[in-house]
Amino acid sequence: MHPQDDTRPRHYCGLFGIYGHSNAAELTYYGLYALQHRGQESAGITASDGIDLRTHKGMGLVGQVFDKNILRSLPGHLAIGHVRYSTTGSSHIKNAQPLVVDCARGQIAIGHNGNLTNAARLRAELEAQGSIFQTSCDSEIILHLLARPGKDDRAHSLEAVMQHIQGAYSLVIMGENELIGVRDPFGFRPLTLGKLPTRLDEDGVEGTAYVLASETCALDLIHAERIRDLEPGEIIVINKDGVRSINPWKDTQQPHAFCIFEFVYFARPDSDMAGRNVAEVRKELGRQLAREHPVAADIVIPVPDSGNYAAEGFAEQSRIPYANAFVRNHYVGRTFLQPSQLIRDFGVRVKLNLIDEMVRGKRVVVVDDSIVRGTTAQARVTTLREAGAKEVHMRVSCPPHMWPCPYGIDFPTRQELMAANHSLDEIRKYVGADSLGYVSLAGMIGATGIPAGEFCCACYTGQYPSPVGADLDKFIMEQRRRGSRSTVGDLVHPDTQQRLL
Amino acid sequence: MHPQDDTRPRHYCGLFGIYGHSNAAELTYYGLYALQHRGQESAGITASDGIDLRTHKGMGLVGQVFDKNILRSLPGHLAIGHVRYSTTGSSHIKNAQPLVVDCARGQIAIGHNGNLTNAARLRAELEAQGSIFQTSCDSEIILHLLARPGKDDRAHSLEAVMQHIQGAYSLVIMGENELIGVRDPFGFRPLTLGKLPTRLDEDGVEGTAYVLASETCALDLIHAERIRDLEPGEIIVINKDGVRSINPWKDTQQPHAFCIFEFVYFARPDSDMAGRNVAEVRKELGRQLAREHPVAADIVIPVPDSGNYAAEGFAEQSRIPYANAFVRNHYVGRTFLQPSQLIRDFGVRVKLNLIDEMVRGKRVVVVDDSIVRGTTAQARVTTLREAGAKEVHMRVSCPPHMWPCPYGIDFPTRQELMAANHSLDEIRKYVGADSLGYVSLAGMIGATGIPAGEFCCACYTGQYPSPVGADLDKFIMEQRRRGSRSTVGDLVHPDTQQRLL
Amino acid sequence: MHPQDDTRPRHYCGLFGIYGHSNAAELTYYGLYALQHRGQESAGITASDGIDLRTHKGMGLVGQVFDKNILRSLPGHLAIGHVRYSTTGSSHIKNAQPLVVDCARGQIAIGHNGNLTNAARLRAELEAQGSIFQTSCDSEIILHLLARPGKDDRAHSLEAVMQHIQGAYSLVIMGENELIGVRDPFGFRPLTLGKLPTRLDEDGVEGTAYVLASETCALDLIHAERIRDLEPGEIIVINKDGVRSINPWKDTQQPHAFCIFEFVYFARPDSDMAGRNVAEVRKELGRQLAREHPVAADIVIPVPDSGNYAAEGFAEQSRIPYANAFVRNHYVGRTFLQPSQLIRDFGVRVKLNLIDEMVRGKRVVVVDDSIVRGTTAQARVTTLREAGAKEVHMRVSCPPHMWPCPYGIDFPTRQELMAANHSLDEIRKYVGADSLGYVSLAGMIGATGIPAGEFCCACYTGQYPSPVGADLDKFIMEQRRRGSRSTVGDLVHPDTQQRLL
Amino acid sequence: MHPQDDTRPRHYCGLFGIYGHSNAAELTYYGLYALQHRGQESAGITASDGIDLRTHKGMGLVGQVFDKNILRSLPGHLAIGHVRYSTTGSSHIKNAQPLVVDCARGQIAIGHNGNLTNAARLRAELEAQGSIFQTSCDSEIILHLLARPGKDDRAHSLEAVMQHIQGAYSLVIMGENELIGVRDPFGFRPLTLGKLPTRLDEDGVEGTAYVLASETCALDLIHAERIRDLEPGEIIVINKDGVRSINPWKDTQQPHAFCIFEFVYFARPDSDMAGRNVAEVRKELGRQLAREHPVAADIVIPVPDSGNYAAEGFAEQSRIPYANAFVRNHYVGRTFLQPSQLIRDFGVRVKLNLIDEMVRGKRVVVVDDSIVRGTTAQARVTTLREAGAKEVHMRVSCPPHMWPCPYGIDFPTRQELMAANHSLDEIRKYVGADSLGYVSLAGMIGATGIPAGEFCCACYTGQYPSPVGADLDKFIMEQRRRGSRSTVGDLVHPDTQQRLL
Repeated sequence: MHPQDDTRPRHYCGLFGIYGHSNAAELTYYGLYALQHRGQESAGITASDGIDLRTHKGMGLVGQVFDKNILRSLPGHLAIGHVRYSTTGSSHIKNAQPLVVDCARGQIAIGHNGNLTNAARLRAELEAQGSIFQTSCDSEIILHLLARPGKDDRAHSLEAVMQHIQGAYSLVIMGENELIGVRDPFGFRPLTLGKLPTRLDEDGVEGTAYVLASETCALDLIHAERIRDLEPGEIIVINKDGVRSINPWKDTQQPHAFCIFEFVYFARPDSDMAGRNVAEVRKELGRQLAREHPVAADIVIPVPDSGNYAAEGFAEQSRIPYANAFVRNHYVGRTFLQPSQLIRDFGVRVKLNLIDEMVRGKRVVVVDDSIVRGTTAQARVTTLREAGAKEVHMRVSCPPHMWPCPYGIDFPTRQELMAANHSLDEIRKYVGADSLGYVSLAGMIGATGIPAGEFCCACYTGQYPSPVGADLDKFIMEQRRRGSRSTVGDLVHPDTQQRLL
Repeated sequence: MHPQDDTRPRHYCGLFGIYGHSNAAELTYYGLYALQHRGQESAGITASDGIDLRTHKGMGLVGQVFDKNILRSLPGHLAIGHVRYSTTGSSHIKNAQPLVVDCARGQIAIGHNGNLTNAARLRAELEAQGSIFQTSCDSEIILHLLARPGKDDRAHSLEAVMQHIQGAYSLVIMGENELIGVRDPFGFRPLTLGKLPTRLDEDGVEGTAYVLASETCALDLIHAERIRDLEPGEIIVINKDGVRSINPWKDTQQPHAFCIFEFVYFARPDSDMAGRNVAEVRKELGRQLAREHPVAADIVIPVPDSGNYAAEGFAEQSRIPYANAFVRNHYVGRTFLQPSQLIRDFGVRVKLNLIDEMVRGKRVVVVDDSIVRGTTAQARVTTLREAGAKEVHMRVSCPPHMWPCPYGIDFPTRQELMAANHSLDEIRKYVGADSLGYVSLAGMIGATGIPAGEFCCACYTGQYPSPVGADLDKFIMEQRRRGSRSTVGDLVHPDTQQRLL
Repeated sequence: MHPQDDTRPRHYCGLFGIYGHSNAAELTYYGLYALQHRGQESAGITASDGIDLRTHKGMGLVGQVFDKNILRSLPGHLAIGHVRYSTTGSSHIKNAQPLVVDCARGQIAIGHNGNLTNAARLRAELEAQGSIFQTSCDSEIILHLLARPGKDDRAHSLEAVMQHIQGAYSLVIMGENELIGVRDPFGFRPLTLGKLPTRLDEDGVEGTAYVLASETCALDLIHAERIRDLEPGEIIVINKDGVRSINPWKDTQQPHAFCIFEFVYFARPDSDMAGRNVAEVRKELGRQLAREHPVAADIVIPVPDSGNYAAEGFAEQSRIPYANAFVRNHYVGRTFLQPSQLIRDFGVRVKLNLIDEMVRGKRVVVVDDSIVRGTTAQARVTTLREAGAKEVHMRVSCPPHMWPCPYGIDFPTRQELMAANHSLDEIRKYVGADSLGYVSLAGMIGATGIPAGEFCCACYTGQYPSPVGADLDKFIMEQRRRGSRSTVGDLVHPDTQQRLL
Repeated sequence: MHPQDDTRPRHYCGLFGIYGHSNAAELTYYGLYALQHRGQESAGITASDGIDLRTHKGMGLVGQVFDKNILRSLPGHLAIGHVRYSTTGSSHIKNAQPLVVDCARGQIAIGHNGNLTNAARLRAELEAQGSIFQTSCDSEIILHLLARPGKDDRAHSLEAVMQHIQGAYSLVIMGENELIGVRDPFGFRPLTLGKLPTRLDEDGVEGTAYVLASETCALDLIHAERIRDLEPGEIIVINKDGVRSINPWKDTQQPHAFCIFEFVYFARPDSDMAGRNVAEVRKELGRQLAREHPVAADIVIPVPDSGNYAAEGFAEQSRIPYANAFVRNHYVGRTFLQPSQLIRDFGVRVKLNLIDEMVRGKRVVVVDDSIVRGTTAQARVTTLREAGAKEVHMRVSCPPHMWPCPYGIDFPTRQELMAANHSLDEIRKYVGADSLGYVSLAGMIGATGIPAGEFCCACYTGQYPSPVGADLDKFIMEQRRRGSRSTVGDLVHPDTQQRLL
């Protein structure tokens, strides 16, 4: 993963929830640790002791936001946690999650991974009905909907809310005594259920704690056992009565659309998704790449760390030796200063340094997981050439990215997406490679071992599984927020005003 | 003022607003500096450049929360600011103000001084209608009401909102291009309007900036000129069209109820309130005290700093020499450690040390502004006795506090209010004084030079000018928030649930 | 005291030490709290458990530098503490005290109040002998001297070191098992010895703890009893064998030179110095001022807080009413932003606001403790005139400051000292007063009730009790440190160097 | 590298220096970024503008300690920087480097990598002569020696100092106008010289900047070109006259002793040391391991990241497939909380998670760079077994560690060194492997391609190239500092003391 690489998509979040453990907040802390790769901007935990919800959140990494005293101030047997991706724009503590409110139902906290595609419209509708918004999170829309009375004057049920909202969402929700996990009907984003045996303790909590997590690596860390992924559209309710499931879409023809880019890039390689190990899938992507785009070369090198497994697979299939010629500086944090003009390519070089000796005079295959804008790929190829590589063959372990993602991945606009505007050969020339090969769509899907119908591949195909408004109405909302509007002066009826001065 | 004295009432806030100055946020910063005595828990500023509202708030003093870079990040010609009182309980950044929301009207920021007496009921009603609450501030209720459509499907006007809310509130409100000041119909809390000439600058802003502030000392600091206090019930709207006033209560029989304790304790002595200088009023309170409770003594000493002017007045009237025998440590901040048992009376002593030489062998009159629980007064008298004072006569520059305040002052409950449960002589014995005298209600009001009908004196008389629910429903709300409620499980219709595990 | 007033002298420090209490560091913390007015730049505590010295120091106020965990990390029965004055120049954590070293004697920690007048020469001599310096504190010179072997090859005794160093110094020194207090032979700076009964505790420490402090207000806070001030030249050694005294100057003709400005300005009014209460002395200074410079006026007002007691005395003697017309903002911390040109006189106004009503149309006597550069006095008079004062009579409770202080008070140079370069009438005109009167030297000394021979009055008379080099060699040292010197290249013998590139 | 692995040696530092660049401090910042793996406890930079040395240092990573404003406050054309290893014990800001002093030579700053073996004796001697020590850094000894006059009454030359000090030291030293690099006569620690072309700028600095760095990866990042490593015993002096070299040991029989563990573990793989690329050497170590300890297996997996290249080499030589089955969490910072008993093996698991699918049912070769205490190796093998590995064969890319290192590597004592007290088979049983193989000493040296006589292999052989006192006198010093010593009471001659109380 490349947390600091500004050309990479990184619109993602990590979710964790646990019910039935006397150290719920502490286990949530560890869970978030394992999910840190899904979001480094902010971290938050809400815990409940059955009476009150207590929340702590802050900007930065999990280890920076929490300490022992803070965790001690979050007692209870029930907790949810959230790590949020980093963007410069709306980076603000007020957008950190869980989002916690008081409403007619009591206290509710929510953590959200994904992006609603009808957020702007829903927000406008809600505002028209008198709702106020204190954050720019989609999750606040969901809370408003949950809090509103439905036609029968009872509060909207979660199922009813799910009928209103469109797009991608995995959710962890909690009240004073209940943990709920939700996955949207398309299943865009992952969410897994696990369990953890608990010993009898002084709080009388024993037996089994249940865990929700974006990825299985969070279960592994706390020795929890994976039960299964939530189904698309499924709601899991965990409380003192046990674990219940409801899936209103079960008997519908609802298509599935799991984000295939989780396999390619986002997920931690040690996680399992849809029952397949991510690293194994990446290896197979590399093998497939070697089958589709063979080349005579002396060495296969990955762009670490996201290209590692695909490069291994490529090397294995092609029988060309594998070598880690790019060395990553693991201490590059989020805070390093950018030397404006002092050092060329500093942003690229500070993360990866090339071992010249390994590539000098050689025909090199370099394997990366994607090309987005092309600038990073170009810098890598230039570095290889300067080090004396005789040939540079670029191989990419997914098809060309041609369409933006309305479901929560922060790809650039079509204008900036290299592959949306250039032919394969133009891209090859731009990045400066002797040859360039992407794995095919069919090849990519085949590598997962999962039926094509299960995936969203819209960023490659433009075929969006759910309706998206013209130009993705999310962006409209962003702009609307900055527009000029009438003053709040009409707070006061004009005819009752009189000139004072 | 005694910012660290836990036995003092301190449920107060300071408000500032400015329209028409190219350094609006910076001037707001200085204004808050002057109002810091009204709240030390948190500070916040919202500024608008006509398009966007930008906000910064944090826990701590104004000088700690803001620096030059932060003020630079708050550009615009329009700003409001808020300092919040300190209590341990609900001290949390989420309750810092201004509170800022997006709604159908656009962006609105609000700063609030006071306490709504029907907050719990309004909140319950709003929740029943589907509103969600993210803070425990009354101001959030006001924002909800402003955002809701009225009967005619237009947004509620501010006047309409003021018909719903009860209790004490002075408000500064801003939109993208407008500043509004509001004072509740009773006029419980102060709010003053001023103006500041501005030079022509690069932003084209010239002429006159208008200022709203809780106290005139904030106007003085920035060389602004006081125009007048807002009338009870008055709404002042300041925008590019100038300054307009509306007062729906103008022609009603609405009684006035300005908090007389502002004169006695809260306001800075250099402020003017209702046209009277606070220090002068306090001096007159001291003179009146000397008239009502004369005593033969050698020396008059104040409990600094709130007793200073009353002691001066007492000394002047009684012709007994005045002396600052208690010395205050001005460096006692909010962070000092409490030595549990190591040092007796440390909390009291660290703030004030007595100059023994000044009182040894003397008959001492000690003048304080109030006795709430009695413990501090007792500690002071003990200190004087230990230093060798021959007699200690306690004089208090307001009547006995017997009733809690539902309008925003954090008095203890009746159980804890010394005077509510004990006779004058019992109090005298408890604090250990040779004599004890409070100024009379009539004497206090007379000292202000303002008609009695203008004031709220409910903490002395129990005659609350506005209806207050049984046991002050604010406290009910507090408790309600901690109660056990049904789970959020009914988010999911019970009949669609099925047992999973 | 005016901690933020940049025109005030403020080159001072506060010392505290305690031996024989199981909470030595915690008591030192409280002691420093009481001495905070003597230094707000940095604070530090060193404690010993008999084996190891542990130190914590930091920039800022005592309450900011320490918390419970830090105090817990400083166990032991013996501790010293130090607060340091604030200057912009050499403000750096490396200069915070106590200064702690390892040397042949073991571990030694030292806290220093004052200024050595031969520091530059001693430092040059020590450097010539091979000493290295890591701070710019005089105290480091003292440690070097203590660590060096004397002629008899034993380490220099403290008495021997005191023969070498000149100028002003009060010291607290500690080793693993010993606390030492020192006052220079002239007695420029204060240092007091006290005692505190201790209960039997689990550490077996019981009986009596001994305390050293710059001022008695630190003893008062912890309920310690003052024994007596150290004599000039006295060394007090406190260890398990009790308290011992040695004074090598006892039988010499050594003159005494206690800084009289402690009485006028520096000390807390509730402290006793040389057996006299500081506030009482200040009151007498005010009475004397009224005798020497009587004037017909309507009101006497102090410049708070340092002018308070003198103004009280003036009012008492002259029978003119006293009034606190200047109101101080107690929340002005060290961090407020200076509005470059936005607000005239902001620096002066943010601290003190005038209550115009109190002075309008009146003949005002304003009493301050000193005039240094004259700019602040001018601003005060201007403010009074603008508020409508009919006459302004300035009275100063010490004689004119005409000479810089080489003993540790940060007066400006003679060029900047108003009185050094202007006649009384020129000063009067500059500050804009109708009349101006300083108390006379004899009057000032008389007010203390202490023989003239006990004091240093050099800042008024230019008669320096101890030899000071031309232009005060301290300043030479400052400049020397910035000079151009030969490179360290002669680290390498030139003849052995060979050209490499 | 395993910065958080408490069982790993990590007593190391990184050095950087630059002369002749108008952004010296900023380039030093980047240099330290590249060297961050050599020390994460503290970071510091000293820069000179030719007149004054300015220093900033702090605890934490380079990116945390510095920001743009701080770098701007360090102007000049000359700078040195230092990153320090992390240990709990003496972790303190006072030990952060560069260490900067004033002495007869002027201002000197020093950064030190390594450990003096006669530090305790030298320190005792210096203390006996009157020196005081403010840190526990060996570097302070060097500064004392440099500052002291020699026999000819001139300051000791650097060559003379090098005759006194024993052990390992690479140094960067600077004065106002000079940069010096030093490597000890054995050449224990690395230090490289490079150059960087500079453009003509407003400061008139142009031509060539010279750079000193612990590793070449720091040169790479700033596009500097490596000139050559310093020779053992060499002193490089860089000033306005250019670059000069002196090597007093040039014509002596001085043996060389470069730390071979730099190749095995410490250095970044992209660095070159002694002309050999570190990654290539590690790969060859892996190949040699495969030759010496072949095994029939299905998969070769590294313990990331230090085992990566050796595992690659092993796989290549053995033709067994390579796989990254252990996945590292790159967000494990220095601040994560340890869950005391809540989660078994948390410290090990939080860093590395195993992909069970990759090893299940397989015969696994796991390659690590060393076994120190054996506990980590044991945890890894257990994890592999639990995941279903059929066989686990452990291969270590250096010989068994049997002796502590007195030259600056923080190995545990012999008691704790697994291999010092157990036979190969006992270790195998302890860690639970089916087979265990270490590379041989000859094999390791052979893999470097450098003659054996160039290396220190003392941690494997016990043959220390330089004399080391009994039990490594460094540790003696540590203990001595905590011992009970006579009080400082002898500061005062006993016979002059008299009983006071």
